[in-house]
Amino acid sequence: MKGLTTISLDVMSGDHGLDTTIPAAINYLNKNNDVFFLLVGDEKKIETHIKKHIEVDFSRIKIIHAPEVINMDDSPIQALKTKNESSMRRAIDLVKTGAADGCVSSGNTGALMAIARYVLKTLPSIDRPAIESSLPSVHSHTHMLDLGANVECRASHLLQFAIMGSVLSNAVDEVNNPAVGLLNVGKEMIKGNDQVKEANELLESSHLNYVGYIEGDDIFCGDVDVVICDGFVGNIALKASEGLARLVSAYIKEEFRRNTLTKIAGISAAKVLQSFKNRVDPRVYNGASLLGLNGVVVKSHGSADSYAFEYAINIAKIESIKNVPQMIGERLELLQNVKTA
Amino acid sequence: MKGLTTISLDVMSGDHGLDTTIPAAINYLNKNNDVFFLLVGDEKKIETHIKKHIEVDFSRIKIIHAPEVINMDDSPIQALKTKNESSMRRAIDLVKTGAADGCVSSGNTGALMAIARYVLKTLPSIDRPAIESSLPSVHSHTHMLDLGANVECRASHLLQFAIMGSVLSNAVDEVNNPAVGLLNVGKEMIKGNDQVKEANELLESSHLNYVGYIEGDDIFCGDVDVVICDGFVGNIALKASEGLARLVSAYIKEEFRRNTLTKIAGISAAKVLQSFKNRVDPRVYNGASLLGLNGVVVKSHGSADSYAFEYAINIAKIESIKNVPQMIGERLELLQNVKTA
Repeated sequence: MKGLTTISLDVMSGDHGLDTTIPAAINYLNKNNDVFFLLVGDEKKIETHIKKHIEVDFSRIKIIHAPEVINMDDSPIQALKTKNESSMRRAIDLVKTGAADGCVSSGNTGALMAIARYVLKTLPSIDRPAIESSLPSVHSHTHMLDLGANVECRASHLLQFAIMGSVLSNAVDEVNNPAVGLLNVGKEMIKGNDQVKEANELLESSHLNYVGYIEGDDIFCGDVDVVICDGFVGNIALKASEGLARLVSAYIKEEFRRNTLTKIAGISAAKVLQSFKNRVDPRVYNGASLLGLNGVVVKSHGSADSYAFEYAINIAKIESIKNVPQMIGERLELLQNVKTA
Repeated sequence: MKGLTTISLDVMSGDHGLDTTIPAAINYLNKNNDVFFLLVGDEKKIETHIKKHIEVDFSRIKIIHAPEVINMDDSPIQALKTKNESSMRRAIDLVKTGAADGCVSSGNTGALMAIARYVLKTLPSIDRPAIESSLPSVHSHTHMLDLGANVECRASHLLQFAIMGSVLSNAVDEVNNPAVGLLNVGKEMIKGNDQVKEANELLESSHLNYVGYIEGDDIFCGDVDVVICDGFVGNIALKASEGLARLVSAYIKEEFRRNTLTKIAGISAAKVLQSFKNRVDPRVYNGASLLGLNGVVVKSHGSADSYAFEYAINIAKIESIKNVPQMIGERLELLQNVKTA
């Protein structure tokens, strides 16, 4: 029998806290017999929320009491220095001690990054962790990083992101030699700022399957497995795409609600529109990984509902099973040895 | 009687050259009695293409011969130094001499920027021209700049872009005191890189209606009239959005083509889907303005078809009628006087 994967969940986090995290945890538990959850937060409140559910497999959950909560407006420094008994901090501590294989939180991104970095430390040869998420593409999905952890990067950081993304794609999607693209304003060699030009040179001489510069629209083409950029550009590109997706959805709704005739057409097309909606449902892409740390840490969107939170849990489980941090560490060591050989 | 607005068209430019530019010019001419076109390019070829059309108002077109063409792979320097007799160069020269009020080209963006800057010069107190385009938002549209002319900017450039965008929105859309937002990775003051933090301070103390930081998804919300960012970020955010829009359209098509039942639903929803398609048709947004120059220069997308090229012509006409370059110059002078007063 294969052992259970233990995930610590910061159940106090997110816009809706226990109202979403507990139902998500129990649903996930009922559907997956290979996980064990450490539910971290206010013990009494967690118990009250669990009681609302009929079917709960108590053999695979354990409550870890944490009296404090990190708020969305706490500064990362403040959260790190003053909230040692917060649910977020304890969830990460459990990864550090080995009690948990990975953790998930919907809390304050800056605080999560600061605490995770302080508690777990970065992997050798990684200067800075990066935020990674998978995005839909024509036939599958693409891993993109950094999405906002590092608003100012050097070229060497972009190379590190590329290595981490490549290992992730290989581990999680079992892609052999993942294709890596560097986000730029054009494909020609003369295009771009100094940062990408320098990173391009580093990537060219790396052992990665580097395909060169790609442009913004290539993110969703599916021609590359990994998209690399600095956190400023990545965050804005991702959110701009989300904004346009919302606009397009609003337009579709408006057109089908325009008059009686269009409403009738909408009824006959309801099933097709629902399949389409499911396919572009951003909840399915919920869960961003903090890569480059000695441990699995997944950030769920603050506004995630229960359904979306399950997807973040699933990412933490997969990365824990595949042991992504160790794989990244081994790859980095290998590259280090090649360099010094 | 109000005078005609004269626009010089680089009819040799774009992926399909005369096959798209000539039909667009003639269609536009037939629908608008307030324009006069200078068709710049190979005289013989232009004449041949014009002959294909039945209704042509020859009183409002004039052919200006230009024997050379700038190719998409010509470097901007090469185009500027060696192709003095190109259609692009002559179209811009006509703006310089006052023969044309504005010009349109679907050619090589780098060459267009280099030649326009060399021939027309930038306005006093403008260091660098910027590329601006309008993007759809919930109820109207938003002007965004820079979209790729300046991959590395200082904070002072971002302020200049804000002034230009604000004047444009006021002139073209008649928005009083347009709301200007600065693109960043978060709305809080601590967020962002040094460049945006410094630009934020400059904008705070400007006389613009500056609303502060906005995030990527706010571009399409319609809460601001003008979105400011450097050309690296702007280009990638715009193209990422275009990429996602294409992905969403592909998904819709796929879902309606899945089987016989969905195909039937597609037929009954065809009209609604067509209205939706028209609304997100990127051709309607074709035409990017090169702002900050002593003259109106509009860049049409290289792959623009005849329908899309008409939209670019229309932008050049409106900016010429409103005399946008002069308005930007006057606003800058006013700000200069305020500063030195």
